[in-house]
Formats: sequence, structure tokens, C-alpha cells
Amino acid sequence: MASIPTDLSTRCSLLLPKYEAVRGFSHVLCEPLEIEDFVVQSMPDASPIRWHLAHTTWFFETFILKRFARNYQSIDPMYEYLFNSYYNGIGEQFPRPQRGLLTRPTVAQVMAYRREVDNRMGQLLLEASPEQSVQIAPLVELGLHHEQQHQELMLTDLKHALAQNPMYPAYESDAEQTTEKATLQSWHEVAGGIVEIGHTGNDFAYDNESPRHEALIPSLEIAGRLITNGEYLQFMDDGGYQRPELWLSLGWNTVQSQQWNAPLYWVRQGEAWHEFTLCGLRRLNEASPVTHVSYFEADAFARWQESRLPTEFEWETASRKVSVEGNFVESRTFHPAPTKETDGLRQMLGDVWEWTNSSYAPYPGFQPSEGAIGEYNGKFMCQQYVLRGGSCATSESHIRKTYRNFFPPEARWQFTGIRLAR
Amino acid sequence: MASIPTDLSTRCSLLLPKYEAVRGFSHVLCEPLEIEDFVVQSMPDASPIRWHLAHTTWFFETFILKRFARNYQSIDPMYEYLFNSYYNGIGEQFPRPQRGLLTRPTVAQVMAYRREVDNRMGQLLLEASPEQSVQIAPLVELGLHHEQQHQELMLTDLKHALAQNPMYPAYESDAEQTTEKATLQSWHEVAGGIVEIGHTGNDFAYDNESPRHEALIPSLEIAGRLITNGEYLQFMDDGGYQRPELWLSLGWNTVQSQQWNAPLYWVRQGEAWHEFTLCGLRRLNEASPVTHVSYFEADAFARWQESRLPTEFEWETASRKVSVEGNFVESRTFHPAPTKETDGLRQMLGDVWEWTNSSYAPYPGFQPSEGAIGEYNGKFMCQQYVLRGGSCATSESHIRKTYRNFFPPEARWQFTGIRLAR
Amino acid sequence: MASIPTDLSTRCSLLLPKYEAVRGFSHVLCEPLEIEDFVVQSMPDASPIRWHLAHTTWFFETFILKRFARNYQSIDPMYEYLFNSYYNGIGEQFPRPQRGLLTRPTVAQVMAYRREVDNRMGQLLLEASPEQSVQIAPLVELGLHHEQQHQELMLTDLKHALAQNPMYPAYESDAEQTTEKATLQSWHEVAGGIVEIGHTGNDFAYDNESPRHEALIPSLEIAGRLITNGEYLQFMDDGGYQRPELWLSLGWNTVQSQQWNAPLYWVRQGEAWHEFTLCGLRRLNEASPVTHVSYFEADAFARWQESRLPTEFEWETASRKVSVEGNFVESRTFHPAPTKETDGLRQMLGDVWEWTNSSYAPYPGFQPSEGAIGEYNGKFMCQQYVLRGGSCATSESHIRKTYRNFFPPEARWQFTGIRLAR
Amino acid sequence: MASIPTDLSTRCSLLLPKYEAVRGFSHVLCEPLEIEDFVVQSMPDASPIRWHLAHTTWFFETFILKRFARNYQSIDPMYEYLFNSYYNGIGEQFPRPQRGLLTRPTVAQVMAYRREVDNRMGQLLLEASPEQSVQIAPLVELGLHHEQQHQELMLTDLKHALAQNPMYPAYESDAEQTTEKATLQSWHEVAGGIVEIGHTGNDFAYDNESPRHEALIPSLEIAGRLITNGEYLQFMDDGGYQRPELWLSLGWNTVQSQQWNAPLYWVRQGEAWHEFTLCGLRRLNEASPVTHVSYFEADAFARWQESRLPTEFEWETASRKVSVEGNFVESRTFHPAPTKETDGLRQMLGDVWEWTNSSYAPYPGFQPSEGAIGEYNGKFMCQQYVLRGGSCATSESHIRKTYRNFFPPEARWQFTGIRLAR
Repeated sequence: MASIPTDLSTRCSLLLPKYEAVRGFSHVLCEPLEIEDFVVQSMPDASPIRWHLAHTTWFFETFILKRFARNYQSIDPMYEYLFNSYYNGIGEQFPRPQRGLLTRPTVAQVMAYRREVDNRMGQLLLEASPEQSVQIAPLVELGLHHEQQHQELMLTDLKHALAQNPMYPAYESDAEQTTEKATLQSWHEVAGGIVEIGHTGNDFAYDNESPRHEALIPSLEIAGRLITNGEYLQFMDDGGYQRPELWLSLGWNTVQSQQWNAPLYWVRQGEAWHEFTLCGLRRLNEASPVTHVSYFEADAFARWQESRLPTEFEWETASRKVSVEGNFVESRTFHPAPTKETDGLRQMLGDVWEWTNSSYAPYPGFQPSEGAIGEYNGKFMCQQYVLRGGSCATSESHIRKTYRNFFPPEARWQFTGIRLAR
Repeated sequence: MASIPTDLSTRCSLLLPKYEAVRGFSHVLCEPLEIEDFVVQSMPDASPIRWHLAHTTWFFETFILKRFARNYQSIDPMYEYLFNSYYNGIGEQFPRPQRGLLTRPTVAQVMAYRREVDNRMGQLLLEASPEQSVQIAPLVELGLHHEQQHQELMLTDLKHALAQNPMYPAYESDAEQTTEKATLQSWHEVAGGIVEIGHTGNDFAYDNESPRHEALIPSLEIAGRLITNGEYLQFMDDGGYQRPELWLSLGWNTVQSQQWNAPLYWVRQGEAWHEFTLCGLRRLNEASPVTHVSYFEADAFARWQESRLPTEFEWETASRKVSVEGNFVESRTFHPAPTKETDGLRQMLGDVWEWTNSSYAPYPGFQPSEGAIGEYNGKFMCQQYVLRGGSCATSESHIRKTYRNFFPPEARWQFTGIRLAR
Repeated sequence: MASIPTDLSTRCSLLLPKYEAVRGFSHVLCEPLEIEDFVVQSMPDASPIRWHLAHTTWFFETFILKRFARNYQSIDPMYEYLFNSYYNGIGEQFPRPQRGLLTRPTVAQVMAYRREVDNRMGQLLLEASPEQSVQIAPLVELGLHHEQQHQELMLTDLKHALAQNPMYPAYESDAEQTTEKATLQSWHEVAGGIVEIGHTGNDFAYDNESPRHEALIPSLEIAGRLITNGEYLQFMDDGGYQRPELWLSLGWNTVQSQQWNAPLYWVRQGEAWHEFTLCGLRRLNEASPVTHVSYFEADAFARWQESRLPTEFEWETASRKVSVEGNFVESRTFHPAPTKETDGLRQMLGDVWEWTNSSYAPYPGFQPSEGAIGEYNGKFMCQQYVLRGGSCATSESHIRKTYRNFFPPEARWQFTGIRLAR
Repeated sequence: MASIPTDLSTRCSLLLPKYEAVRGFSHVLCEPLEIEDFVVQSMPDASPIRWHLAHTTWFFETFILKRFARNYQSIDPMYEYLFNSYYNGIGEQFPRPQRGLLTRPTVAQVMAYRREVDNRMGQLLLEASPEQSVQIAPLVELGLHHEQQHQELMLTDLKHALAQNPMYPAYESDAEQTTEKATLQSWHEVAGGIVEIGHTGNDFAYDNESPRHEALIPSLEIAGRLITNGEYLQFMDDGGYQRPELWLSLGWNTVQSQQWNAPLYWVRQGEAWHEFTLCGLRRLNEASPVTHVSYFEADAFARWQESRLPTEFEWETASRKVSVEGNFVESRTFHPAPTKETDGLRQMLGDVWEWTNSSYAPYPGFQPSEGAIGEYNGKFMCQQYVLRGGSCATSESHIRKTYRNFFPPEARWQFTGIRLAR
């Protein structure tokens, strides 16, 4: 991650309000939950809410308190093992697919763990000298962005778990459903040539956004808004899921073996398509951006449109023109929504993560951070595709135009969607 | 199941105290649990506690209230699907391996479901005419024995779930551990010839215990007490898990593919074997009956001893001499215990279910009950072995000498143990 | 196996003609094959023809030549590993599911191996003293029966392999198809009581047929002939594969997961059912015995008929009345055929192996043979059902009324069929 | 593929000598084989030799004869299904993992199929008008390169099959083993900047090498020769397979689940490493290029060397300096060999396919060919990495500097190796 200047403003204590805001937001998100909802792991890729709450806390304990707090005593040595996600540099990890088999520590005990770590973190941030702050502050920043990532995962993992229940329980039943119509698609030119890509400046960014470097892009046009459910229905009606010529070979294998015939969470009831959302089962709104589609589906849709997905470099270059606004988690819709704007490059940030056709790879000269923290990003640079722009489950303060999210091409449980290029 | 005479004593109302006692005991067993403990399903063969509580209630609703209660309205039509275990005659079933993915109905809602069904059952039992009682009473008896079976499964499924947690949480931490020594083994003659096997009389029995019929058994000797942990350790020390000649072919395959080297729940810490129990992790007591062994292990142990397991007919014949006493769930030890008696046929009832070498098959002339209730037992008469005698997790009022329990030969999560014959 | 008297007639040399006849018959069976047909293993339960030819030879080398031939040198030490089926007492085994991955030794090399072993066996049998003969003769008998078992497996494994090919190649294309009509079913009384079961006398028998012992059977009626394809079609037309109430629970799971809707090898072309046979794809003959059904299907059919399968004791008792005649491999039809006889107990021997509802278990007092040869039968006495009577792929000189064949209840690739009892 | 000019020199008849040479080489490669070797499929990714011979023939029949030969009658309609690899545009395909279950058509029948297609192709090429030739010639070129690809796969698939046999049969036992010493590593500068990438000119190339386009590469150094077995042993001795920090996350998972501890085909005998080669099991030559390593292993080795793999653009740019010479299949060593040259950029072509760290993706503006032939390359552009340079199993006339081979990162059965960049 980017380094932070060493002047007085880096005193850790200045981070305390942000620390409390981010940590507190995890609890805000849990407010509608029953205890039972904290326990379930509905697939190996997802984790129980309990686990997310504990793991993000473990992160602060492991990478900050254990290193910097005076006379620090581990709160529970077993937690080091139970809540380590994938940091081999720290030690063994409890098997990921079995996270949903644990009933202890209970939710109440996890909350106590959070309180205890927060107390000690508060003390440390207040007391840290400027010299210590230089080391601690970037780790706190990292820990808070890490927690924000997990806040998004809490929503998507919870959604996946609730969707297993034929009763379709809602997380938030009061959100109003939009009745906007879809606006017309438009196309926007992006000039080709050598462009600068990657993070610059002193603000926080992950290590995978660096180093800033030059890339060569062709001249292209990028679509003004996201693909809608209505457009996706046309693809389906045109035999999209039955025509192998539209699909990558692995995609077609997946369509057949998984018997995909619609995006994840779409439910056919009689003649009408419905969509399971965090607000319960709803009749499909054709104006809303299509979401919960895999890279395979995004790619096949683009081929059907005689178009393509943008590269991450093209996306980042195009995004220069827009401001960081959009439908984020703060809107509390918990679902992508139709745009009301009728022209310009719209919905670049928020609503849905946009699949690019860039394999997730290191930028030239990429150096992961030192130590176990270097396992955060670099070791996943294989067999995944980059997504850009954040979603309706992302915090506004978490996203950047240089932000590189990544998932395997078959993943569908995130809020993922489609923007075309040509 | 056996029919009940139609005199006045069969008035359903007389069953009310038993109904309340059995139903209430399910709640007694749940007292030490956290909400989280009700949710988890640690393997496809096990079920969440929530599910057991709801399914046993569904049984009364489905087979009694829906047929006999006036103007009965289903409490929640979705429950019919969610809590049907395997009754194809009733309808589709929610997939068994996914029971642990449900978070709703919550524990509180399941408890409300139980209260509602209990209220309506209470009303029905009070109001039923003698004519109705003839039909209803046997079903109530069946439902209560069904609930007692699930009470045992609640304990064994919970134990399996808790055992997944490296923190080894205890269900009941206060039970005292015995310090008895093992008594000497003894052998008891059973005379051969034609014997009567199966249920007789008017008390309740499952349909699989009938019809009573003749069987031919050889003369034999049966062991006076159960095999102990100490004896089983000798088998292990003698290379029991490394010698294919001691094992059935399927057993040896299982030993190798599952990497079995001790009974389930045995944990080696340094030099000492420990055992995970419902009372937490304990140092292995060599005098206690070995438990959580599969049929394969029981059979290999017997071969090592140049001995064999009894048939279920031999066991039932031998059991005639003993009274129905023993270490049942009422003792609240939740674990098999050394016998204090030094001679005679001991531990036949309670402590552990005893593997017989009888495949589970219908008795000659067996007729399953009419309708969906006939799916209770008969359709499982394949690829399972019969166990006899009940365990430390069985209710004393649930067990009989003619009782036939059955599990596949690789099952280890029940309280199963070994008694030899020769 | 039964011991052989030690008089002069046991001189091994007297076994030579039988040795040559049985060994030669393996080659007769291979005559129609292409080299390619010797290589393939179409499922883990089946083996390549090459392997059968080598393994049966390994049996003589391992259990006779290595023990009794003077200065015996192993023909190829690697063969000991490659062609050991499951004898842990001999040593490690090449993994069974990978037998079809080997291309060496080639067919020609395997044939040379057979010639070499046959030469040495011939020499040994000629030269063995009476004292040696007492030991060797029973092993030769066992080896020859072992080879006959594998001859049957060669036909059924080959059939399974050929059936994978959509070109449906025939093993023997010239066999004429019968046009007989089905005869009427009849029922024959068998008196209940204590009966003698198991092998007696000096002729060869496997160890699992001993010791002869008493068993108790009820009075019953047994069907006069096998169930026909026409009768099985009625079961199918009556929804047999769609009605869970007809099936054991494991059977119904298998029907659903394997999508069974007819016996193995039945092929629907347009409106007409066809059957893949060793003589190619043929239109289904309704008069022929149904074959390639699992125990689950046999059991479900019997339940549909409000009838049941006989126990192996009942079958053996009923068989006393019949002579050992029938449609064996010598008829070279390679398929079960309608009976021409119109009354009496027909088709008991030959045509198809008849599923009994007896789990395969040791007879009281059963002792497997000493040493590795004791692994022949005993260790498989678990999770299998007994079949009786031999099939159209069995040698007439191989079968006996006390013969106990055994397969798991889902097995369908043997010539298995149905006879009812009630 | 690149178009071919329409002047007289494109008369198809001029292609006949090349047609015969390439087709004949398939038979040359089969000379050392036994019939048995043509049948086996040792894993789903590999195919039987029979299948390769038939499929390459099917390619000419399907894409040329059926379209251009007058009154063409399919040789066997079933072959269209059996030997279609993955062309959905042509029709259904026989399931890939079951190719090794087929014994018909026999090898002799496949050879007859080849002869028949070759005869008809010969006639067509002789008779084609110039107008037809414009269409046919590029397809013939494609078909011949397709056959050359399969010739390489025949060797690697055969090697994989032979390696399953503990007897380690050799394909070619006479090849002499080199005794060269390894030369010193050297580093060669490649200037950064905008470079031209992809195929140009009129010679044959696959569609995935087009369109030629600009790419931006950094300045770098590329290693002068391939990594040797000796260098790879140092990596192993330094705990290479035990240190998660050296591996991509997916790579580490694979190391653990597959229990990798050396390249594929390395065999430890006592203290010494051996290597199974097409010439049998040989003691490891430390000077030879390491081969049969996955992308994961190449990447981990590079990280251990504090170095990296080149991108495919870097590799192609560096290759401009070298000539297309090297250790190809024509050398009949069937194994990579140490280089004798001591300086300069060596071994770029031949010996082993060199892993690049470029995900296999379409070049900007890529257009697959029209029709089913367009399924040749494009649909596999996902989850694979590009390899460059050809191997000891590649035909010299088949390789080009712009040639893009591709395999998933876990693939090890090809002749794959490592060249570093930094």
C-alpha cells in the first residue's frame, strides 16, 4: 500500500474517528440479523457472519496489537488459528470449508472479542509516538479497508445463505423498489495511446494498484450505462443459454454442468421472473442493472451483442471523466438501481462490480508488502478476472478508480454486472 | 406397531401426562445450549437441533392433527416440506444435506411451533371419543417413541458438531468422571435350539419387531460385560489398525481411505489418549466401555480375540435373563461407564448400543404399517446392521429387549460398542 | 474348500485333462476378440480381458508353483504385483481402477506367460508324489474353479465394455435368437421346518458353502420359472421406476441418482425396446428372462407383485427337486432364453443368477482356509446379497446347488434375474 | 489463419507432397507401438493414439471432403460423432473422458479410414480448380498443422500412459543419452518501448496470432538458456515444495492436494533421482533442461530466484534475434537436451515449451475464423497461460516465433520448461 508522510498529521490518534466509524458500521450491518444468521456457511467461498466479525478483529490484533502494544497478551491463542484466513506467514489455518461448523466462540463472545480489541486499539492509537505512528498508521488504514471489504462480503455471503431457504427471508424488508424506466444506451469515445495506470498520490491504496505505469490502449467506445435486466432477458429469449457459439469453452461447460439458465437468484414463478434480493423476493425490474452474472455470462452477452468487455486499463482511462458518486452501501438499497441520468458515462462507480476482460496480474514491477501482510493480494494473481467500480454493497469511502477487485470467472454471488466496449 | 386394546383405558386423555413428559424432555436436553448450537449440521447424517425439534413436532402435526383435529389449518405450509425427513408418501423433502443452511424458522419460531402443536394436541387428546382414540392413541405412542429416538440423535449429532471445534466445548461440564476399575470378563452359556424372537404383548413396539416368530440358534457363550477401552487399546497396540487379515474387505478399505487409527473422538495428546465426550475432552478411562466404534471395528476386534459378535437372535435370547436397568440418559452421565457388578450378564441394557452380526432384515411375514407411516422402518432394511440394548443417550422408557436399532457398518457417531460371543 | 481323500485317485496327474480343458476354454472364449478388446476397463468393478488371463495364471503360479515346484523361479517378479487381485497376505496390489491403463505385458506376452505356467504346472502335476498330491490337488481344483469364475467375468466385463461403444459391436454375431413364447407361471410348495444347508460330500466346493448346518425355514411357495421381460415391462408400464413406495430407501436413491428407468443394456429406439446382448443389439424378446437387474429392482418388482424374493435357504431347499441342467455357457447362446418346459420347477440352474433376499454372511462355524487363500471368500461377507443357480455365462461343471455367488445390491452387469416366492 | 494469395502457386496440387509427408509422419511415430498402446487413455486430458489418428482424419473429412468433394459419401456416419473433439458447430461429441473405452473401430479400421480419406484428399487436391483452391488450400494447411499438433500430443499422451506402468516401458529405447555439462547462464538485454506483436506475411499462422498489433514492453533482461535439472534440484533442496511464500495461492493448494514434491515423471530410487522418458527410466541428467513442470512450479522457481517469467510479448521480442533451430522431433531424442552453445540466446526454439506469465487472451481486434473452424482457438482464451517456442516433440516445420501454445497452469504432461526474465 502507499506510504504515508511522516509529518504530525500522521499521528495515529487522528485515525481514531475513522477507526470507530468503520468498525461500528460492521455492527450497523448486523442489526437486522438473528443469532442464527451469524452461524451459517452456505458454500466454501462464503463465510459465516460470526467469522467475518472475528477475522477482521483478528487482523488488528495480529498485525498491530501483537507487534506494537506494550506487554500484549493474546486474547485467546486459539483465535489465532480459528480466524486466520489464509496467512501462511502467521501459521496454520482452520479449514475454510468448515467455518460453518463452529458454534463457539458464540456471537456474544465474538462481540466481546471485538470490544476488547477496540479498547486496546484505542489506547494504542492514542499513545503511539510519531515514530511508531509511521509504522502503525498504514496498518490501521489497511485494517480498516480490509474491514470494509469484509462488510461487503458479509452482505453477499448473507444473501447467499438466505437464498438457500425456500422461505426467502429478507434482510431488509422496508427498502422501496424503484419504478424508473431504463434510459437509452449511449457510447463514449476513449482516445487510444499510452496512458498512465495505477495509483498515485498519498491516499490509501492496495499494493496491487502499484506501481503506476504506462500502458498502451487502442481507441475505443465504452457504453454509457450498465446492461439492464431487460436487455439480459432479450439475450435469454434469443437462446443465450442454449447456444455454445456464444460462450467460452469453460463457460459452456459450466452452463451445462451447473444447469445455468438465468443469473443467480433469478426465480421463475409461473410466467414471471423474480429476483431474490436482500429485500426479499421481488418481481424482476427490467430497468435495473443485471447482476449476479459470472464473467462467462458477461462475456457471452457481449459476444451476442457483437461487442466486448473493456480491459481494466480501458475502464480506468474512461473513468477519469467521472466523479466518485453512485449507489453505494450508504444508500441502503442493497441492490443496484436504474440510473436516472440520461446521458454521459453513468454508473461507473457503485451499483455493480463491472467485469473486465483483464486477467488479474501484477503490474510491471509489482512488489508485495513485506512479511505476512504481503499475502494480502499478490498470491491470488492467477485464474481470476479484474472487476472495477464497486457496488451497492461497497462503502463509498472504500472505492477508488484504480481499485482492482478480482474473482474467478464462474463467481456469481457478488454484485457483478456488465458494461460493454467496442 | 402393536395395536392397543380398545377398552376405556385407551382414552387418549390418559396419554397426556406421558405426552407432556416426553415433549418436555426435548427442552430439558436443550437447556445447556447456545442459540448457535441449534443451527449447525456437521455432516449429512446428522441434523441441526432446530431441525430435530421441528421435525418431531411435524410428525404429530402431519400424522395426527391433520387427520383428526377438527378444521385443522396447517401452521405453516412450508413446514410440511422443510421438516419432512423421508416420507415420500407425504411429499417432497427439503434436501437432507442442506438442513444446516437454514436460519429460519429461528429457534424461537420453532419453539412457538412446538407450543402451538402441543396446545392443539392437548385439546385433541382431551376431546377424542373412544372410537377416535382407538386410531389416535397408537399414533401418539409412535410419535412419542419417535421423539425419544430424536432425543438420542440430538445428543449424538450435537456431540459430533461440538467435536469439530478445536476448542472442544462441553455440553455438560459438571458430570463427574468415574474412577472404577474394570471388572473381569466372564462368559455365559446360552442354550441352542428353536427360540421365540420378536415383540409380544400389548405394550408399544415398532413394526420391525414383529411378527414374533421362531428362529434356530446354536449353543453359545456370550460375554458378561462390554469390551473396555483398555482392551481396545491392546488391540491397537497389537497393530489392530495395520493388519488387513483382521478386517472385512470393506472395513479395510475404510480404515485406509478414512485413515482410522482409533475410535472416533479419541485424541492423542503427547503420550496420552484422550476422549472427547459430551462433558468435554477427558483423559481416556481404560475401565469404561469402548464406544464410537463402527461395525467394522467391532468385527475386527472380535476376530483379533478369536471370537465373534452375537447375532441379534442370540442377543435377544441371552437378554431374557436380565432386567431393563442400566446407564440411560436419565443418569445424566452422557457417557458409558464401567460396570460395578462383578458377575452375571452385565450392561446388556444402556451404556452403548451393541453391534450384532445380523444384517437388518424383515422378520418372516413382516408387514409395514399402512400409508406413509409404513416408511418408518421397512424401507431401510438393506445394508445396515442391527444393534441392541440402548445407550447412555437412550431413555429408559424407550428401550426394550426386542428393540432393533440399525446403522450402516461404517457409522461411528452413535454410542456404539462391543460385546463378544463364541 | 472340501478336502479330497488321499487314495491313489488323488494323484495330481489325474487332474491334467481337466486342467487343460478349463485353461483352454479361456482361450476359446477369446477367439472372437480383437487385440483392442483385451485392454479396456470400462468401470472399476470390471477388469480387462488381459488382466483376467494373467490373474488366473498368477493364481496357479502364486499358490502352487511357488510353493511346490522345485527350484521355482518367478517368471517376472513384477507380475506378482500387477496381477494380485486382493490378497493382502501375498503383498501389495496394483490399484484395481487402473488395470485398464496398462499396455504391457501385451496380449502376446500374457499368452506366453500362460504357456509357461501351463508347462510348469503340467510337469508338476505329472511328477507330484501322492503325499504332495494331497496338498496340491485341492489347490488345483480351487484354481480351476477360480478360472471358471473369471471366464464368466470375462464375458460380463467384455459385455460392459462393448456396451460403451455407440456402434454396439457384437461378441458373437451368429447366435440365433429364440422365438419361443413365455410359458405360464406356476407355484410350487416347499415344506417348512428344519433343513440341512450347505455342502456335503467329497466333491469340490468353496469354503463359504461350509459347514453344512441346520436352518429353519417357513412353509412357502416358490415360482416355477423366472420373471420374463414381458412381465418386467408391465412393472415399468405401471410406473415401477416412478413409485418410491415400491423401493427400499437405498434403491430409490439409486434410481434417482443413476436415473434408472429400465434394466441395464435396455435401449429405447423409437417406440421399441431393444437389448444390447453379446450377440449385438436385438429387439427385446418378451418371453426371455429379464436380466441385468439389480437387487433393488428385483426387490421392487417382487413388492409390486405382492410377493417377495426367496431366502438362500429356501432356494437351496427348493432346488433339491431339480437336476443340474440348463442354459449354461456351453450352449453358446450367451444370453438367457425362454424355457420350453411348461410345468415343474424350471430354470433353477443356468440362464440368470437369481437374487435372494439373504445378506451374504458366514454359515455358523465358518472357518476360512488357512493363509492368503483364506481371503478368497470370507472377507467379502458384508453389504452383499447372495445369488444362486448360475447363468448362461457359467460353466456347467462349475455350478452346484449349494453355490453362493454374491454381489452388492446395486450391481447390474452380471446376468442377474428374478424368481419370486410367497 | 492468414489468407493465401490466389495466384497459380496456390493450386492445391502443390500441397500434395506436404500433405503426404505430414500424414505419413503420424505413421512413422506409431512404428514402435504395440496395438495395445493405441487404446489406452490415461487421464481425461489425454487421448488414445487410435483417437488421434482418427480425429485428424475426421478433420480433413469434415472440413474439406464433405464440403468440396463431389458426391461425397461419409465413410461412416458414426465417425462424425466419435471423432469430433469439441466442435459444437458440427454436432454432438462422444464424451471425452470415455475415449479410452472404445475398442472399435480397431487400429486396422482406423488405418483403413486414413487410407480412404487420403485417397479422396489426393484426388481432390489434384482436381481442384484455381477457384476452389483458394478455399481449399488454407484448410489443408490448417489440417496439416492440426495434425502436427496432434503428433506432439500423441507423444505426450503416450508418455503419460506408459508412465502409469510400473514396468516403465520405453517408446524408443535406442536413443543415446547426452553427457554434456551445463553451460553458464547469461542475461541478454531487451530494449523497452512499443513493439510489433503477432503474425505478418503470407505464411501459415493460426488465427490467434493475429492481428499484428502494437504492445508496450519495459526494458528487461532475458536468460540466455533454459533452467536445468541441476538448478531445479537446488530449488528442491532449498525447500521449494515446502515454502508457501514462494507459491501462488492456487499453486500451493495444488502442491498440497496433489502432493507434488518434484516435476512429473521424476522417480526417486534410493538416493538418486531418475526421470521417466520416452526412452525409458533414466538417471537424472543435471545439465538437461528441467521439463514437465507446471506454470505454478515455473512461477515459484522464478520467485525463488528473485526473478520472474517473461511475458509473451517480451519473449516474442527477444526471439527476433535467433534463428528457428533447435532440438525438435526430427532429432528423435524425444527429450530436451543440454545446449552446447556457450553464449547468446540459446534454446529459444525446441527442447521445451517455455511458460510465459501471460494469460491466454485475444489480441486486440481478434476475429475467429467463420463457422465451426472458428472454434479452433478462440473459445479457449480463458484460464490458460501462453507457452512459446516449441519442444523436442514439435515438428520444425510447425513452429514459429509468433506461435502461441496454451495450457492451464497445473498442466505438467507436456514438455514444458522455464526461462527467466528480470
